Amino acid sequence: MFMGASTKQGYDIADKSREIVRSLIAEEIKNLSNEEKDIVERIVHSTADPEYAKLVYISFNFVKSSLKALKNNEDILTDINMVKSGITQYDGNVECFIKNSEVVDIAKDKKITRAAAAIEFAAQNDFKGIIVVGNAPTALYKAIELYNNNELDVSSIVGVPVGFVGAADSKEELKNSSIPNIITKGPKGGTPVAVACVNSLIQTMKNINR
Amino acid sequence: MFMGASTKQGYDIADKSREIVRSLIAEEIKNLSNEEKDIVERIVHSTADPEYAKLVYISFNFVKSSLKALKNNEDILTDINMVKSGITQYDGNVECFIKNSEVVDIAKDKKITRAAAAIEFAAQNDFKGIIVVGNAPTALYKAIELYNNNELDVSSIVGVPVGFVGAADSKEELKNSSIPNIITKGPKGGTPVAVACVNSLIQTMKNINR
Repeated sequence: MFMGASTKQGYDIADKSREIVRSLIAEEIKNLSNEEKDIVERIVHSTADPEYAKLVYISFNFVKSSLKALKNNEDILTDINMVKSGITQYDGNVECFIKNSEVVDIAKDKKITRAAAAIEFAAQNDFKGIIVVGNAPTALYKAIELYNNNELDVSSIVGVPVGFVGAADSKEELKNSSIPNIITKGPKGGTPVAVACVNSLIQTMKNINR
Repeated sequence: MFMGASTKQGYDIADKSREIVRSLIAEEIKNLSNEEKDIVERIVHSTADPEYAKLVYISFNFVKSSLKALKNNEDILTDINMVKSGITQYDGNVECFIKNSEVVDIAKDKKITRAAAAIEFAAQNDFKGIIVVGNAPTALYKAIELYNNNELDVSSIVGVPVGFVGAADSKEELKNSSIPNIITKGPKGGTPVAVACVNSLIQTMKNINR
């Protein structure tokens, strides 16, 4: 299994695509570690958008902290179900609480988005692990807030929400926090970016443990 | 429910974002119909990438044929589960066969990708409806081939696979076919683009029938 491929033809396509990606962004990512390079290559592979090589910022402790969490089978919490459904190769739990009825109630009570309420719900239920935000800046803000209040146990955050309202600012706040993190600068990001990052880490963890 | 928002805060963010999107791409999409404009605006909203206003091509009969199919509750078939999980507001069936055991067998027997085999499986099981390809060019090629052989009943195809190998060519082939279609020129596309297009059509259909 490589980049979602499971047949000879699928593997060949994924392989050739990765070569093209490398030729496009090799210069921009030359100073990254191998694990970080794989993350950025996967993001560009899954978006066909080489600009991401310029937009991705990875904190110095992100890969180490994330791999440790994955090795310990800590939970992965995603902001929306689309992101969850792209993470198919993890042995631990991948959760998304946005449709949980308690989350709907929290959102109504506090007049916040369901995505933010889902992070509150996770904190209330002793979540420990990696938080993956591909879409909702409000979820990212809530995670940072709860972490700063010592109410949320986060090993790392994949913070790549997309959009013109709040996304860029929320990612700057994450970048400036002490949480091990990966972000994409500016409005761009989204589900494929988030999924590519997590799947790269899972693959790296499995390669190490093989 | 608008752009996935269900709370006041969520609605406000979606609303403001749509305004920004309109200000960015109004000139490029001024000649499109209102239904087509909504599709392109949603794509730019969900990718935060205004370049899509230049990349989207919509065939003259795409919206009409798609809306008729949706009104008749025809099936929607997606290439991968991530795309399926983003289509949450449809009253008809949303299918993805890529993990079906018969599909795995077809892929092995014919040495094709599972994504292509899933289209063959759909044709064998009298699929009728809209095909949505956000990722696998091989699925798109297969759908066009089966349609040309009168083996697949397609109302329209959302053909927006992403990637540097085969994606652009497969979309050109769809654009030049007689199938009602939407494509994105070049390598770019992907799950959020596919989902944005389908959800725009579903919303338009519901607004008409309200």
